[in-house]
Amino acid sequence: MKSIPFGNIRPGGFWGDRLEINRRSTIPSVYDRFTDTGRFEAFRCNWKEGSELPKPHFFWDSDIAKWIEAAAYSIELHPDPELEKIIDGVVDLIEKNQQEDGYFNVYFTVVDPEHSRFKVRDWHELYCAGHLLEAAIAYYNATGKDKFLTLMRRYVDLIEKIFVKEHSASFDTPGHEEIELALIKLYDLTGEKKYLDMCSYFIETRGTSEKDKNIPSWAKPEYYQSDVPVREFTAAEGHAVRALYLYSGMADLADRTGDKSLLDACERMFDDIVKKQMYITGGVGAASSGERFTESYVLPNDLAYAETCASIALALFARRMSSINPDSKYADAAETAMYNGALAGVSLDGSSFFYINPLEINLRKREIFEKYYTFDKTYKPITQRVAVFDCSCCPPNVARFVASIGEFLYSYDDETLYIHHYMQSDTEFEGIKITQQTEYPNEGEVRITVSGLKGKKLAVRIPGWCGYVSLAGEKLSAPVKKGYAFVDVTEDEGTFDFWFEMKPRFVSCNPAVSFNHDKVCLCRGPLVYCAESVLNDGRQPDNILLDVSGRVGLEFSEETGAYTALADAFEELPREELYFDVKDIKREKIRLRMLPYFAYANHGESDMAVWMRKGEGNA
Amino acid sequence: MKSIPFGNIRPGGFWGDRLEINRRSTIPSVYDRFTDTGRFEAFRCNWKEGSELPKPHFFWDSDIAKWIEAAAYSIELHPDPELEKIIDGVVDLIEKNQQEDGYFNVYFTVVDPEHSRFKVRDWHELYCAGHLLEAAIAYYNATGKDKFLTLMRRYVDLIEKIFVKEHSASFDTPGHEEIELALIKLYDLTGEKKYLDMCSYFIETRGTSEKDKNIPSWAKPEYYQSDVPVREFTAAEGHAVRALYLYSGMADLADRTGDKSLLDACERMFDDIVKKQMYITGGVGAASSGERFTESYVLPNDLAYAETCASIALALFARRMSSINPDSKYADAAETAMYNGALAGVSLDGSSFFYINPLEINLRKREIFEKYYTFDKTYKPITQRVAVFDCSCCPPNVARFVASIGEFLYSYDDETLYIHHYMQSDTEFEGIKITQQTEYPNEGEVRITVSGLKGKKLAVRIPGWCGYVSLAGEKLSAPVKKGYAFVDVTEDEGTFDFWFEMKPRFVSCNPAVSFNHDKVCLCRGPLVYCAESVLNDGRQPDNILLDVSGRVGLEFSEETGAYTALADAFEELPREELYFDVKDIKREKIRLRMLPYFAYANHGESDMAVWMRKGEGNA
Repeated sequence: MKSIPFGNIRPGGFWGDRLEINRRSTIPSVYDRFTDTGRFEAFRCNWKEGSELPKPHFFWDSDIAKWIEAAAYSIELHPDPELEKIIDGVVDLIEKNQQEDGYFNVYFTVVDPEHSRFKVRDWHELYCAGHLLEAAIAYYNATGKDKFLTLMRRYVDLIEKIFVKEHSASFDTPGHEEIELALIKLYDLTGEKKYLDMCSYFIETRGTSEKDKNIPSWAKPEYYQSDVPVREFTAAEGHAVRALYLYSGMADLADRTGDKSLLDACERMFDDIVKKQMYITGGVGAASSGERFTESYVLPNDLAYAETCASIALALFARRMSSINPDSKYADAAETAMYNGALAGVSLDGSSFFYINPLEINLRKREIFEKYYTFDKTYKPITQRVAVFDCSCCPPNVARFVASIGEFLYSYDDETLYIHHYMQSDTEFEGIKITQQTEYPNEGEVRITVSGLKGKKLAVRIPGWCGYVSLAGEKLSAPVKKGYAFVDVTEDEGTFDFWFEMKPRFVSCNPAVSFNHDKVCLCRGPLVYCAESVLNDGRQPDNILLDVSGRVGLEFSEETGAYTALADAFEELPREELYFDVKDIKREKIRLRMLPYFAYANHGESDMAVWMRKGEGNA
Repeated sequence: MKSIPFGNIRPGGFWGDRLEINRRSTIPSVYDRFTDTGRFEAFRCNWKEGSELPKPHFFWDSDIAKWIEAAAYSIELHPDPELEKIIDGVVDLIEKNQQEDGYFNVYFTVVDPEHSRFKVRDWHELYCAGHLLEAAIAYYNATGKDKFLTLMRRYVDLIEKIFVKEHSASFDTPGHEEIELALIKLYDLTGEKKYLDMCSYFIETRGTSEKDKNIPSWAKPEYYQSDVPVREFTAAEGHAVRALYLYSGMADLADRTGDKSLLDACERMFDDIVKKQMYITGGVGAASSGERFTESYVLPNDLAYAETCASIALALFARRMSSINPDSKYADAAETAMYNGALAGVSLDGSSFFYINPLEINLRKREIFEKYYTFDKTYKPITQRVAVFDCSCCPPNVARFVASIGEFLYSYDDETLYIHHYMQSDTEFEGIKITQQTEYPNEGEVRITVSGLKGKKLAVRIPGWCGYVSLAGEKLSAPVKKGYAFVDVTEDEGTFDFWFEMKPRFVSCNPAVSFNHDKVCLCRGPLVYCAESVLNDGRQPDNILLDVSGRVGLEFSEETGAYTALADAFEELPREELYFDVKDIKREKIRLRMLPYFAYANHGESDMAVWMRKGEGNA
């Protein structure tokens, strides 16, 4: 199956607004901050020891590359000559500073030439190359300009020579995966099998190489997904973004080659993640130490790492799996990440960002721990978004993710059009037209109008959170397979009115996640809700119990583009005694204002909680 | 009012057993460990730089002093010539190494003579002097031998000269309070007012001295209870043991002088502690950083410091308050500390000790934090008792506390005998005989037989945990004032059959203590219970909910001398899904074995919890 490219899809509604903010605010804002911090200037390659210029970091190339990729995606839907001019300027600098043999990397050219040409596995050379290649492909697709692409193909040829032909690098596979995805895109674009073979080489060599064991002392092979050959993976391990980029590359490769055992490994990883290692927000990689997967059920809320890039990577992986072997579990996970863990990475105004996405902020608890229980600086997530980070991978990653969100919607083969996600949008692609009219994610009604599909089937995903589906006002009776309802398209133009019942839900967590004991999470449709003290007259979320048998009112918010929930809840009352009989608990009914998780931390520093204490009836 | 000295009281039953273990195991065991570690040898004062002997620490004198005090108390109830010989040997060494002018301190004599004679406030010179003086008084009371006491009175005279007359020390009041209590004892013994004046000087000068502001950079004046004059204290602050020794000294002084405003300050401190800063076990000083009081409601369970010595000090303070101004709140707190926080400091066999007394051990939680969220060494309480510590104040403190436990029972004045605590025991004192026949703390029946009290009153404490009291089978009708029932003694010999109803209780905690949200604690009589995984087939306490409307069975344990509780509870069942509807929670009924808190950690390393999740009815 193939996906309908996002360039053929015009999102409106909720995502239409997010794309506008992305175009008008996020892309310019990231550009400005990358300019301020010297990342663009670095491409002039005129930094020297003692120079007043900021010293380039070894992953800065990837920051600029992701920004170019985002800008190119934006240009594809919304031409912008000014943006093109900026990109053309960067491409000129790349051309100027690319070395004789095709090598291009700012850091290893001007800061540390001694280690250039792939001497240190952990220093992101191939990762930067991969992102530059993805950017070049995106820019070619958006504008038809092939200069950047041509430069990058020369670099890829050098990489092929060094890694695949000569084996002359100090390592065999990337310390940070990414180039695998880029190579598949290049293969898809050019049809040249050597790129597929390169991807295959990097994936199949992983876990088998002696050279790759030369890693820093603090790390372990599994941190780099290099402990065993990829087919032998049993659980998601190591650095979360690296792992998920690898799994995505494995899925791409399995798709292009039809390799069943590789696909099985992908499904195993996916199942392990969503059944044991994923926050309810779609956050993954719970460990701050190493930004990595932990182990089953280790999902603390206040200490959550859950990097924005990792949620995006999970969505990218799930999107691939949806297209290869449609099962609604994949799009469910992608949807969760898309609306929660990934989208929380950017502020409502599009100009500031989270790298880390905790599910709880308890300022008092932090203060107590720091004041009374440690002399050390202990990990704690920041509480407000910022414009740029030293390691600023997430901001341009969010930008390219939002700009290309349409790509998640559809897959197709000769017989079936799969509709994975719901989004107000108009699509035209190879004689097909698809319109979705919907207020999703706020309402479950979706009117799907298709033309050019007569005699084929629509496979419509039934979201995992949905208990009741109707089609044209009747309970859905079409056959359902792996979470997709299969509906025949009998007319040249057809309209299908789906309704996915969307009720507020109180969700419990597996008791093996001790952090969520006796707690519930309010969800509605794909949105996870949270409570902030700043929106509730300073009330501490941990002093409040959600009434799981109470009402949840909804109030549309222009600011978030989604419903604010007003939930029945109980607040603990202050009392004199330190200890008292359990029968004498005293609580007061209140209505608690809750926002979608993606919108938290937009109203000043605040305590926040996704998982709330469970109350019922009178308490 | 005065207390009946413990030397006139022969405990039996629960405490009789603990005294036997103390005599047969704890006192010899602490002696052996203090010998192994060179603490006794240090009194020879032959350590030199480069010597192979262990280097004396500046608080070792107090360790030996407390051991002598414990041994003396034991001798008083149970003569032991061997023990006397050991003590006499130590006293000979003190005599030999006491300096011309009366000064005695091993550390400042052999290790750091340059700083001797009170140059550094924080280095415990006066604290050691105080403990040596208490030991000397105890030994004199037990044996009539006055050599040790005479030596120490010379030292006290020197202290008076330096501090009170010449003001020539580098500080004005002790960095670690203790000598205040010793001086009152010396005043009570000798009737010499100068000792009372010295005590008064140290207490009244505190918080007013410029010299005392010369403290280490990490500390603050309130750490030493030196920020304001003692009458201006508003909350218990700083190092918990120091604070409580000071409050005890203040109470003693207020009692001897009738000083109302000083007594008010004591009551304010007491109320602050028991209403806002005391664990349900009677543990106090929640902070590991500085072994100190925190602030209202900061009572984490797994991170609890709650030093054994601090619980003992709380009991000592409460005991004094009970005698000055009888209010059952004081004896309630003393009882809580006595049976829980203090007694947990020693193993059931009497030979090993806890310095720190957490209310929860969750080995997995620790592992997760260390593995994924910090690179630093973070505070964590030990999980098994040990024979000796580098800072080994607690073991001999437990020994002297248990040996003199009888002192808690009675206060008297011309009209009334106050019975503060219940304990199988026979008492003879100045023509009075009192017998308590009871299985307390396991049963609430107490038969009190008195003679020699005709025409006086018994004031019998009604424990705070008790909802129903009967006397001679009838509901108690005697007048009750501040928690004491006043009963007339009309015969020369009278028997009073009290019954304090003793039901298992499920106790909740003030919601301001966020650590205990949605949790309950099982208590019965004065005993706090806890659950250990090692006694429940490896079940994790945090995976279990106590059924607060269920049954609690009781099973007598010879090992603990108390009831083991078998509580109805619910265990979480393992399940597949990571997230699921709240209505689909699945739990299984179990019976949970719970021991009194004082008995935990006697069966191998284990998870443990005092505060358990609250379940009810079906879950």
